[in-house]
Amino acid sequence: MGLEKIEKSSSMRKKVLIVGAGFAGLTLARGLGDTDYDVIVIDKNNFHLFQPLLYQVATAALSPADICRPTRAILRNYKNVEVVMGQVDAVESAAKRVFLQSGACLYYDFLVLATGTRHSYFGNSEWESFAPGLKSVRDAIDIRHRILMAFERAELESDAKTKSRLLTFVIIGGGPTGVELAGALGELARDALANNFRHIDPAASRIILLEAGDRILSSFPKKLSERATEVLEGLGVEVRTGSRVTQVTKEAVILESELIKTNNIVWAAGVEAVSPCSDFNHRIERDGTGRIVVNADLTVPGVKDVYVVGDLAAFKTEAGLTLPALAPVAIQQGKYLTALFRRRLKGKISISPFRYKDKGNLATVGYSFAVADLGFIKTSGLIAWILWGIVHIFYLISFRNKVFVMIQWLFAYLTYEKGARLITDVTERNLKERETRRENARAARFGVG
Amino acid sequence: MGLEKIEKSSSMRKKVLIVGAGFAGLTLARGLGDTDYDVIVIDKNNFHLFQPLLYQVATAALSPADICRPTRAILRNYKNVEVVMGQVDAVESAAKRVFLQSGACLYYDFLVLATGTRHSYFGNSEWESFAPGLKSVRDAIDIRHRILMAFERAELESDAKTKSRLLTFVIIGGGPTGVELAGALGELARDALANNFRHIDPAASRIILLEAGDRILSSFPKKLSERATEVLEGLGVEVRTGSRVTQVTKEAVILESELIKTNNIVWAAGVEAVSPCSDFNHRIERDGTGRIVVNADLTVPGVKDVYVVGDLAAFKTEAGLTLPALAPVAIQQGKYLTALFRRRLKGKISISPFRYKDKGNLATVGYSFAVADLGFIKTSGLIAWILWGIVHIFYLISFRNKVFVMIQWLFAYLTYEKGARLITDVTERNLKERETRRENARAARFGVG
Repeated sequence: MGLEKIEKSSSMRKKVLIVGAGFAGLTLARGLGDTDYDVIVIDKNNFHLFQPLLYQVATAALSPADICRPTRAILRNYKNVEVVMGQVDAVESAAKRVFLQSGACLYYDFLVLATGTRHSYFGNSEWESFAPGLKSVRDAIDIRHRILMAFERAELESDAKTKSRLLTFVIIGGGPTGVELAGALGELARDALANNFRHIDPAASRIILLEAGDRILSSFPKKLSERATEVLEGLGVEVRTGSRVTQVTKEAVILESELIKTNNIVWAAGVEAVSPCSDFNHRIERDGTGRIVVNADLTVPGVKDVYVVGDLAAFKTEAGLTLPALAPVAIQQGKYLTALFRRRLKGKISISPFRYKDKGNLATVGYSFAVADLGFIKTSGLIAWILWGIVHIFYLISFRNKVFVMIQWLFAYLTYEKGARLITDVTERNLKERETRRENARAARFGVG
Repeated sequence: MGLEKIEKSSSMRKKVLIVGAGFAGLTLARGLGDTDYDVIVIDKNNFHLFQPLLYQVATAALSPADICRPTRAILRNYKNVEVVMGQVDAVESAAKRVFLQSGACLYYDFLVLATGTRHSYFGNSEWESFAPGLKSVRDAIDIRHRILMAFERAELESDAKTKSRLLTFVIIGGGPTGVELAGALGELARDALANNFRHIDPAASRIILLEAGDRILSSFPKKLSERATEVLEGLGVEVRTGSRVTQVTKEAVILESELIKTNNIVWAAGVEAVSPCSDFNHRIERDGTGRIVVNADLTVPGVKDVYVVGDLAAFKTEAGLTLPALAPVAIQQGKYLTALFRRRLKGKISISPFRYKDKGNLATVGYSFAVADLGFIKTSGLIAWILWGIVHIFYLISFRNKVFVMIQWLFAYLTYEKGARLITDVTERNLKERETRRENARAARFGVG
């Protein structure tokens, strides 16, 4: 029996390599805990990030630790699961192995890619330095820093034009992220910063939400878009639909027939899929945002033993629609693969196709309003906001984070304050260095200096 | 009457300029709120930092926002108090003005310097890159990152020697900061990281506390030093007294007759005063750590209308002893100046000398032990630890911070976890850039590359 056990644990056990510890990757890793698989989770960060609340870190309401939890801590009780902090450089599906940036090489029996998306500038990547996007904790701290520094600089500025440029905030993109950011920024300026300054009135800041389409929150019913627009306007946000951005510079956003002077631009207009360099990259199909088109069982057509899940996967439903890049899709795909891999242990190869169960769509504007489209019911206001709050607390990864986020919200509700209004010199220096690097690069490119 | 009021508010009102928003500066600014002074508080950060708990940020127990609060938020309700985020470059006491790094110039009637201290390497400033000190939020995040990365790197390391170097932590300096850091690090390695890794055992890490003197916590009675040593050893910390560091390199600490290989060194051995360049700098007296020797009323001998408080002030008691650099001293000095300035409004110039009321001395080791020397009673253990907790919660600047720190501690107590175990790529990149900058500087210096 001893021998049999060794046999099983050394040669018989299949290795599942999961790249990315987001909703999809983590759901699968936990699902395969205490099974006869050896599971390795690789992520470039040492934590799982609860992305839906990242905008609250960017607007100083929450601390990073409130919405993150170390991947190792989440998975520590599963003896068959190992966590590797590292960046996957290349996938060699022919040899069934991946290479890390560190040079390390890991072999797999099954590879699951769950690397998600990052913001995309539709070919204008030079806009990034002026209009950062919001995908990582680093992004959120950068944006928080920029926003808070804008008020600090305006307070000390004597030139009226510069002051007005410093107090103009432009958010590009009227999807849920843009809407949530604009609402939180409105609250920050009107409530949290009230009486904090002597030479400026933060409540008089201009906050502009730009949307190229004809309405914000286009994935929601029209009625709910209208309600959200009203609430945003009540918070002092100018909502401009049909506004296509043609150029972004350090001090302005240029529309088709207008120039908005601003030092504060946030990009929430688009994302693109991120996946490691792979030997199958030339023979797979991707959609317009780089997402990998997958089969009904989340495998990649023509590639053996590679699965793609979460935001990276372009899954087409029977109706021909591609599933949106949302947490519930990622979680359900993680669960589907859990079932698939567990069945395989019992020798069952076939499984019915993945089917997404749409539980609805939520977005929030400020601290007491949300829109909810649950299919059978479409609602907005306080009830929707409470629902939004419950759902987000529920999906937060640990009891600790749930408690802390709830208490932070309670405080915000009672005091109108934001709890994490810190400008840490880490980011200050960091931003300066980034700017210097960029300027040097630019100078080198144009042969200046 | 209207005219009289304008007179008073424009020409009669005296301007008090406070440099530094630590305990001393902030106590004074609040004390002068709603008086007939115009008060300006200048600080390079936008927040007040509760320094006594900074070691808990460095060891991943607390988030920066738990122990910081925006200076503006603290002072927002005092209409006569203004906050300027900036760095003072120079003081011109002859013209009664200060210059900021931004080029701005501010005039004063009374100047209060409260800029505190930073860590000092006794002339070996090149040690800083290998042995960071713990004075700012940035320092704390850097140290947290280094500690967590050491475990991550060790997990992936195959070479036994490198692995052991990565898992050796050396803290230089056995004062309260060093002792608190060593204790928290012991807990992190033994409890919070338990079961988190598959190829290393964090509990087997070496944590070495080096003290040049003959005992740690030398400001406490000998009995309490002994008790603290026992508790530290119980947490797996090697306490080495009589160990003078002669050299610090990237991968080792060198003692008089020993070399300790390590990648993780923290400096807690000494501080020096920081004050802006001033036209009176050549004619004032400083003590061995650069602190400015002050009169009994906290003025600087020979300099008109300049006061020095907090860690920057070297105040000699009647017994000839210099007061220690502790929060209670700073707070009491802030209160003393409040009384002095308030009396002056009533035309009273003379005031009795500042007198420090020593309420005792506390230091903690881990989550249930502290030493307390209250003069009339000297104790250690759980009672002292509860007292330590109460005192620290009491002095935290806001209700919000008090609540959050208490809940974090409660969680830590119940779960043995640390709530802020994040490696944010901000610091990762930042550290790399610092290293690169240093290497470039070194290369330039030696004419290499």
